[in-house]
Amino acid sequence: MSETRGARPIRWAMVGGGRGSQIGYIHRSAALRDRRFDLVAGAFDIDHARGASFGAELGLDPARCYPDFAALFAGEAARADGIEAVSVATPNSTHFAICRAALEHGLHVVCEKPLCFTVAEAEALQRLAAERGRVLGVTYGYSGYGTIEQARAMVAAGELGEIRLVNLQFAHGFHSTAVEADNPAIRWRVDPRFAGPSYVLGDLATHPLYLSEVICPELKIRRLLCARQSFVKSRAPLEDNAVTLMEYEGGAFGTVWTSAVNAGAIHSQKVRIVGSRASLEWWDERPNQLSFEVQGEPARALERGMSYLHPEALAGDHISVGHPEGLFESWSVLYGRFAAAMRATDRGDAAALAGLRYPDVAAGVAGVRWVENCVRSADAGGVWVDYR
Amino acid sequence: MSETRGARPIRWAMVGGGRGSQIGYIHRSAALRDRRFDLVAGAFDIDHARGASFGAELGLDPARCYPDFAALFAGEAARADGIEAVSVATPNSTHFAICRAALEHGLHVVCEKPLCFTVAEAEALQRLAAERGRVLGVTYGYSGYGTIEQARAMVAAGELGEIRLVNLQFAHGFHSTAVEADNPAIRWRVDPRFAGPSYVLGDLATHPLYLSEVICPELKIRRLLCARQSFVKSRAPLEDNAVTLMEYEGGAFGTVWTSAVNAGAIHSQKVRIVGSRASLEWWDERPNQLSFEVQGEPARALERGMSYLHPEALAGDHISVGHPEGLFESWSVLYGRFAAAMRATDRGDAAALAGLRYPDVAAGVAGVRWVENCVRSADAGGVWVDYR
Amino acid sequence: MSETRGARPIRWAMVGGGRGSQIGYIHRSAALRDRRFDLVAGAFDIDHARGASFGAELGLDPARCYPDFAALFAGEAARADGIEAVSVATPNSTHFAICRAALEHGLHVVCEKPLCFTVAEAEALQRLAAERGRVLGVTYGYSGYGTIEQARAMVAAGELGEIRLVNLQFAHGFHSTAVEADNPAIRWRVDPRFAGPSYVLGDLATHPLYLSEVICPELKIRRLLCARQSFVKSRAPLEDNAVTLMEYEGGAFGTVWTSAVNAGAIHSQKVRIVGSRASLEWWDERPNQLSFEVQGEPARALERGMSYLHPEALAGDHISVGHPEGLFESWSVLYGRFAAAMRATDRGDAAALAGLRYPDVAAGVAGVRWVENCVRSADAGGVWVDYR
Amino acid sequence: MSETRGARPIRWAMVGGGRGSQIGYIHRSAALRDRRFDLVAGAFDIDHARGASFGAELGLDPARCYPDFAALFAGEAARADGIEAVSVATPNSTHFAICRAALEHGLHVVCEKPLCFTVAEAEALQRLAAERGRVLGVTYGYSGYGTIEQARAMVAAGELGEIRLVNLQFAHGFHSTAVEADNPAIRWRVDPRFAGPSYVLGDLATHPLYLSEVICPELKIRRLLCARQSFVKSRAPLEDNAVTLMEYEGGAFGTVWTSAVNAGAIHSQKVRIVGSRASLEWWDERPNQLSFEVQGEPARALERGMSYLHPEALAGDHISVGHPEGLFESWSVLYGRFAAAMRATDRGDAAALAGLRYPDVAAGVAGVRWVENCVRSADAGGVWVDYR
Repeated sequence: MSETRGARPIRWAMVGGGRGSQIGYIHRSAALRDRRFDLVAGAFDIDHARGASFGAELGLDPARCYPDFAALFAGEAARADGIEAVSVATPNSTHFAICRAALEHGLHVVCEKPLCFTVAEAEALQRLAAERGRVLGVTYGYSGYGTIEQARAMVAAGELGEIRLVNLQFAHGFHSTAVEADNPAIRWRVDPRFAGPSYVLGDLATHPLYLSEVICPELKIRRLLCARQSFVKSRAPLEDNAVTLMEYEGGAFGTVWTSAVNAGAIHSQKVRIVGSRASLEWWDERPNQLSFEVQGEPARALERGMSYLHPEALAGDHISVGHPEGLFESWSVLYGRFAAAMRATDRGDAAALAGLRYPDVAAGVAGVRWVENCVRSADAGGVWVDYR
Repeated sequence: MSETRGARPIRWAMVGGGRGSQIGYIHRSAALRDRRFDLVAGAFDIDHARGASFGAELGLDPARCYPDFAALFAGEAARADGIEAVSVATPNSTHFAICRAALEHGLHVVCEKPLCFTVAEAEALQRLAAERGRVLGVTYGYSGYGTIEQARAMVAAGELGEIRLVNLQFAHGFHSTAVEADNPAIRWRVDPRFAGPSYVLGDLATHPLYLSEVICPELKIRRLLCARQSFVKSRAPLEDNAVTLMEYEGGAFGTVWTSAVNAGAIHSQKVRIVGSRASLEWWDERPNQLSFEVQGEPARALERGMSYLHPEALAGDHISVGHPEGLFESWSVLYGRFAAAMRATDRGDAAALAGLRYPDVAAGVAGVRWVENCVRSADAGGVWVDYR
Repeated sequence: MSETRGARPIRWAMVGGGRGSQIGYIHRSAALRDRRFDLVAGAFDIDHARGASFGAELGLDPARCYPDFAALFAGEAARADGIEAVSVATPNSTHFAICRAALEHGLHVVCEKPLCFTVAEAEALQRLAAERGRVLGVTYGYSGYGTIEQARAMVAAGELGEIRLVNLQFAHGFHSTAVEADNPAIRWRVDPRFAGPSYVLGDLATHPLYLSEVICPELKIRRLLCARQSFVKSRAPLEDNAVTLMEYEGGAFGTVWTSAVNAGAIHSQKVRIVGSRASLEWWDERPNQLSFEVQGEPARALERGMSYLHPEALAGDHISVGHPEGLFESWSVLYGRFAAAMRATDRGDAAALAGLRYPDVAAGVAGVRWVENCVRSADAGGVWVDYR
Repeated sequence: MSETRGARPIRWAMVGGGRGSQIGYIHRSAALRDRRFDLVAGAFDIDHARGASFGAELGLDPARCYPDFAALFAGEAARADGIEAVSVATPNSTHFAICRAALEHGLHVVCEKPLCFTVAEAEALQRLAAERGRVLGVTYGYSGYGTIEQARAMVAAGELGEIRLVNLQFAHGFHSTAVEADNPAIRWRVDPRFAGPSYVLGDLATHPLYLSEVICPELKIRRLLCARQSFVKSRAPLEDNAVTLMEYEGGAFGTVWTSAVNAGAIHSQKVRIVGSRASLEWWDERPNQLSFEVQGEPARALERGMSYLHPEALAGDHISVGHPEGLFESWSVLYGRFAAAMRATDRGDAAALAGLRYPDVAAGVAGVRWVENCVRSADAGGVWVDYR
């Protein structure tokens, strides 16, 4: 918790995330909390009137509620008090163009994942962000939990020994039937035109994958194999279930199970890291706990907020141990890091930037790359492919 | 989730809750979220300079950072844009005077629990609030969870049958030793001058007690018995552990275990309601779940956000099922109800008020009454006392 | 596991526990396992023909299937190869007479709990057992678990610090309605003529009470208070729910909740021991685990069979860690201790006896005494009574 | 529970399973319980004197404690009261020869898994058992749990809808280091001469695989892919971790994770069956429960022994609900089925045999076949192989 920063809030806008959008709400809750950002403009909806009405309800100046992202970026660029940063919460197919335009207008960007459809596009954004010296953050929204920091610190400290296994899953059951038939908010996710080359691989699996990258930064995938299925036939070629095997450089082995047809499951996003000495297990439905299992010792339930944790696991806490924190706190931490990165970038503070870790454009590229490799493997019949 | 209300935020101040105060932070996070309140003034600290500096960091006008509550209320009363509401987050011993002054200045009030030290004081505040037509809310901060609404709705619908048993506990272990020796933030809680006639009974047990009142509004205590202990001797006469037995009108029976010396436990705040047909169990460390156990059927784990819940259990949701909500969401719901009550009061909308339920001054009186009865019983040797 | 003992099995009979008796089955499974006892005679049923037929099916000599306990003891006493021990699995009301007769015939006895109805009777049996130099064991069947031994050893080693709280419960929901109306096997349990002065206090609560005595042998009750209820009215004066508070010598405090109307609960037999440094929690539905919670450290889940346990916790294991053991293994350990005590008694080996601990006649007396004190308190209106 | 069967026990011997053998103990506990078998002979140990001494302690006639299986079968064949059945609890490499010899002597056989090293051998035993009309049971010891029967019955009744996913795991951590260096009981398991072509695939994974065959008998593997690793290098070519993917006829998909290096895990044997409507999950460390998760409804915890279960799930119960049953009860049920199959075979009761289901020689063949396919895939670099 740290609501006082001695810094004025960053002037900020959203593209997408209008009325009824849950993802829009969590972006705003996280960004506005603790006065890091100030929402001053937006292009919330493809229906301009609806978007403008929504912006007005949020207290925005009607003149700064724009019909689309192009108008938003142009209009704000013309103002002395124009936006400095923008968050993008639109369907996947639009991410690339919006992010590119935002960067070209010199804006810092926060974008929903997946960042875009292809590695080529993602790397183009990465180059553009570097050229323009702007932050491009990606909302891997589970990575703000202190328990993830704890896991990372424990691995770094060697408390698990040598890492052998990385078992990841994000497998819910809410789309066990063709619920998209009646629900536009789901329908675009299973339509390649809007969702890209994958459904659950990109939409779900990249979350625990990113967590594993945070926790085990040393691991590099050498080759992988992916088998994907469309149990609801109308979703083909997009998958609603997939299993990926990963061989890492150095001999570690990983698996990822992702599903939208794991009937009856809520989220089941779990990360298990197995080392030669001990294992860690994290579950997104109980994010205040972390299971630490040393071979030959009793399993330990680590609790968020306890003083036995590594300091970096405590740094983002909003309240003392026992009081459950949830996804909004994780996002709040994330937006705090985005803000810190934007400020450090603005003042050219390379040292500060070096000390910051957040899901940046490289993480966005990595997620797109992983999906691309998975799809390549799956479409070839579920064969091993060298990671590239 | 409902961040757009078509209403301007309520002008609001805090007494107490300054730098380093965790409770202050959660008040502000809850009140400011979704634009229900606007923080415009405060008397955050008994050290004026420190309080003013803190207010400045929060972006307040220095002229509205006051040295104490008297100055705050007088100063704001003199302004056309003065505060309409105030939250009180100071040690227990000061609640009565601050609330009284606030009400006398025509302010709506939100006060930390326990509301004050004696039933006589509490009832005086209740009368004053009625005379002035102001809201006086009490932050029983766990009562905003949707799972509590679900429990209430299930009991009301008869899904448990006739209520027989109410088993309550809030028993942590963080004060198993005399940690207060080095920690002023804890020290006042075990000093009767600042804490009042009880420690854990008032500080902890009133929380699940209020939840039980929300869930089972029909139950009225007929008599109770309380045994309290000071396992850390220096805390006497204040208890760090207590057990209370309650006979309700009509034959139901209740127990409350509260402790600060339940070594190794985190919160262990649990509410179990046993009916003739089924039981419910709620645990504050897993507030997104509710266990529903029908005799003769498999136990069911109800999940926040699922469409099988009663509508009132879904009304306060901030995000869809699976994403854990935490204490900040519960408080946010609570502050939303406080705001709604204040607005309805301001416009004299009795119908709206009748439809609102929140921890009001009557709940505050009830908590103080319960503690007073417990202390009366305990101090007489742990005997049954008629509830009065 | 230790099926080979170099000793011939003890010649053994049962009174009660005939066809369809679950308790009879577990007595036999435990006694016959690992060749500690040999079932050679019985009076299994008040219906002689039925009992004899049952005995025949068990492979017994028809001549040794007796119509009642008197005939059994007399008949066997007349044989050179007559029984040496007998187990009593009949309704409570008959325990005293059968145990007395068995002891008078020089038999070792294993009796179901409660041992009898009154302390006077229980002490009479205790004296008689002492006079005749016979073992009288009581089947507190949960006390054979290794996790209970571990708890005892940890308390003895001071790993919890000074014991402050003993929280006990055994609260199922299977008798939430008047199921006894249709079920004779339950009906006698709520009839004072057969069950004695209590139902759940004697039938359930004495189990965790005995476990607490094993784990914390130093604790002595100074006074107690019991409130009991008959939620199914027809059960009055016998209770189907009760809460007991206990003050121990030295300042520790205890609570016992016992119920047959805890709707939807399976067993919920739990023992929580809270010390100044740490707590232990045991749950009979997960008897292979023991929760160890040191204040300020992560909670640990101790697992049966692991080498980090105290040696006495491992001594009774039947199989390696991970494979769940259940109630039959606990009873098997118990019968192993009964056999060892009987053999040591027979050979006058006082040293061996001193090293043995099992639920003996003193434990049986203690249970009856506790129930008697509870009933005395409850019948006086739930008042504190000095323990006597 | 059914200890009286009106049938004399089957005369029975063991090969292997001598002093200190845990697996020998559980075979005897299961076989001797409830008087289904009578242990009358044995070749318990490759050291004859030690085996004979052990047999004597078990109460056997010294003349029937043989130096090896050949002498056992020959000696018993020469007796009018010779054995009718034998259990084989020796290292894997000896199973084939002993089973063949036993069948050739007209004995019923119970053999540890894996049945042998190759499908060719396994099918040879299958043919021989058929020719001789003898039972050859395989101790997939977890398959006796009532919760497995419940799962099978629910799938058969369509309660899960169409089966889509089969997720299996058996992944402990006890061999995270080279513990075999000091432990001969483990050493042979990682030596291909004694263990065969695999370690954890055969030793662990075949257990949940068999459970999945019991629960989902319709599923037939079309092709599979296996990746295996030797994290403790000295174990190569035998694996201590493996992941197998399975495509079933009809489109269902399966995964199996098996490991001996899952540091800190106890057993982690889990079976999750996902259907189009609901999922089931079973965990061998909590075998009295079964999780049933219908999409859109609260997850249900089914409990062993409850009357809402399918009748076949209750048939093998030893005691009423709440009292935990463990692995010994599962084995007891299994040996009960072996005995029933042997008796039905002896009397030529084809109808009775048709109604019996137990891990028979076909199950033994299936396990060997699965391992053989896994190894074929793994040794080819982890490629898909058609199942044969």
